[in-house]
Amino acid sequence: MKKKEFIKRQIAKTNRKDYENYVVTRIIHFLDDLEIKFVTQQYVKRPDGYALADLYFPQLNYIVEVDESQHIRNSELDKIRDYDIENAIGVTPKRIDVAQNSINKINELVSETVKEINEKVFELKNKGDWTPWEIEKELSPDYWIKKGEIHLSDKVSFRRSVDACRCMGLNYKGFQRSGANHPYEENTVIWFPKLYPNGVWENSYDDEKGEIKTSKSNQAEQKEYIEERLNDSRKRRIVFARVKDNLGDVKYRFRGVFEMDVSKTNIKNGVVWERISKHTETYDYRNQ
Amino acid sequence: MKKKEFIKRQIAKTNRKDYENYVVTRIIHFLDDLEIKFVTQQYVKRPDGYALADLYFPQLNYIVEVDESQHIRNSELDKIRDYDIENAIGVTPKRIDVAQNSINKINELVSETVKEINEKVFELKNKGDWTPWEIEKELSPDYWIKKGEIHLSDKVSFRRSVDACRCMGLNYKGFQRSGANHPYEENTVIWFPKLYPNGVWENSYDDEKGEIKTSKSNQAEQKEYIEERLNDSRKRRIVFARVKDNLGDVKYRFRGVFEMDVSKTNIKNGVVWERISKHTETYDYRNQ
Repeated sequence: MKKKEFIKRQIAKTNRKDYENYVVTRIIHFLDDLEIKFVTQQYVKRPDGYALADLYFPQLNYIVEVDESQHIRNSELDKIRDYDIENAIGVTPKRIDVAQNSINKINELVSETVKEINEKVFELKNKGDWTPWEIEKELSPDYWIKKGEIHLSDKVSFRRSVDACRCMGLNYKGFQRSGANHPYEENTVIWFPKLYPNGVWENSYDDEKGEIKTSKSNQAEQKEYIEERLNDSRKRRIVFARVKDNLGDVKYRFRGVFEMDVSKTNIKNGVVWERISKHTETYDYRNQ
Repeated sequence: MKKKEFIKRQIAKTNRKDYENYVVTRIIHFLDDLEIKFVTQQYVKRPDGYALADLYFPQLNYIVEVDESQHIRNSELDKIRDYDIENAIGVTPKRIDVAQNSINKINELVSETVKEINEKVFELKNKGDWTPWEIEKELSPDYWIKKGEIHLSDKVSFRRSVDACRCMGLNYKGFQRSGANHPYEENTVIWFPKLYPNGVWENSYDDEKGEIKTSKSNQAEQKEYIEERLNDSRKRRIVFARVKDNLGDVKYRFRGVFEMDVSKTNIKNGVVWERISKHTETYDYRNQ
C-alpha cells in the first residue's frame, strides 16, 4: 500500500462523529508533512479502560480527541480483542470541543494542535530520535534485515508471518503455522500467537507488565498443555502477535522477546511468559 | 443554520469518489476563508447535459471536479428535476486527476486550485463586485428588505415562501399557497411554482432563454387552464421557484420577473412566460 492509498483510507473513516472529518482533515492538511504517520479510529488502552482515538500519531504518541473520548463499553470488548491496541498510558489526549465552540474557535484549536505536533517532531529531530514515516519500508522484511534489529519502539508489524520468519533468517516462501524454530538462536521459537481468547485458548497479554499468559479452557487439555510446555526446552519466544490493524487488515506485530516463567506456570495461571527484551536481532534469509 | 453546521454538512457529503474527501477538504482548509461560500455535490447544467459538481463556489462560478465530471444519465434526470440546478454554461471545471497522479502531484494541483480561487476573489474585490458569504443574511427577508432589491446574481433563496412574501411587503405569518397578489405592483403575482413535471403539471424552465412554460397533461384541463390565464389580467409574475438545495432542503429560489407571452401561449405550448427583468424591488412588510 502506498501513502496515497493509506491516507485516503484513514481519512475516509472519520465520519463517526459530527465535525470529526472536518477537524481531522484540517489537522492533516495543515501539518502537510508526509513524514508524519497518522491513523484514525485507533483502539488505545488508557488508565481508565479502552478507548477509540479519533486521530493517533504513532511516532509521537500523540492522540487527538474530537470531543470526549468514547470509552469502549465492556460489552464491546469482545469485538475489539483481536485488534492492534496501542498503549496510551501516560498520554493526555488533546481534546477539541466542537459542540461548544464556534468555527473560528475550532480552527484556532486545530492551529494550536498543529503547532504542538510540529514542536514534538522538531524536538525528536533535535534529539536525533526522529524516524520519518516510510510506508514501503515499514512492511518490508528487507528494511529490518538491513537495519540489523527490531525494537519495540519501532512498532513493527508485518503483513504475513513469513515476512517475520525471513527477518529471523528463515528462507521460507510461505508459512502458515503458529511458530517456527529460530535457525540461529538456541531454544527459541519465532511465535505468532493470538493474544486474546480464541477457540479453545484463553490467552491474554499485558503490555505494561510485559506478560503473556496462554491457557486452554478445558481442564484436561490444560494439564496436558502445561506439562508439554514445561518439558520443552524451547522456552524463549520472539513474539509477533496476530492482530488486526485499524483498517481491519491482519498484521503480525512485534511484541518483544519472552521467556517462559517456570515458577509462575501452573494449571491455574496457564503458561506465563515474561518479556526479557524489547529488541531482537535480525538475520538475512538469503544467507541460509 | 450557522456556517459551522453548513460547512460540516457540505464536507460530510464528499465521499462519493475515491480521494474526493481528501481533495475537497484540502481546498477548503487551505482557502481558510469563511467569506467564500462553497457547496458540494451541486447539480449543474452544462452545454453537454447535466452533471454533478464535486465542489462549486457560487460567488465565483467556479467548479472543481475530482477526475472526470460524472454526467447525469437520462434515466436519472427524473430524480434531480426538483433540485436547484446551477447554470454552468461557459464555466470550464477545474479537473483534478487523482487516479493517475501521486499524492505530491495531487497536493500541487490543489495548491494551484487554491491560488486560482484566491485570485478570482481578489479580482472581484478590486472591481468592487465581491459580496462576502453571510449565511445568516442570505436566508433572512430582513436583509433583502433593507437592501431594497433582489437581483438574479444574488442567488437568493428562502427557506419558506412566507419569507419571499414578506420581502414583497406582505405582512403574513404563514403562507401555503402557490401565489399571492403583490400589494404594491399592479397585475403582479408573487409566484412559487414547481418548474418541472409534477402531478397534473408539465412545467419546464429554461434558465438561458429565461423562459417558463406551464402546462397541464390532460387536454381538456389544458384548454380550460389556457383560457383562464389569457382572461386573467395578472400577467406579471415575480418567480420564487420551489427547489431542493444540494442538502435536500426545500428552498424558494428567485428566478426573476416574468410576463406572460400571449402570442406564444396556446394549447400546444401551454402558458409561456418570458423573463422581463433580472431584479425586483423589495418592500417592508411592517409598513403594510
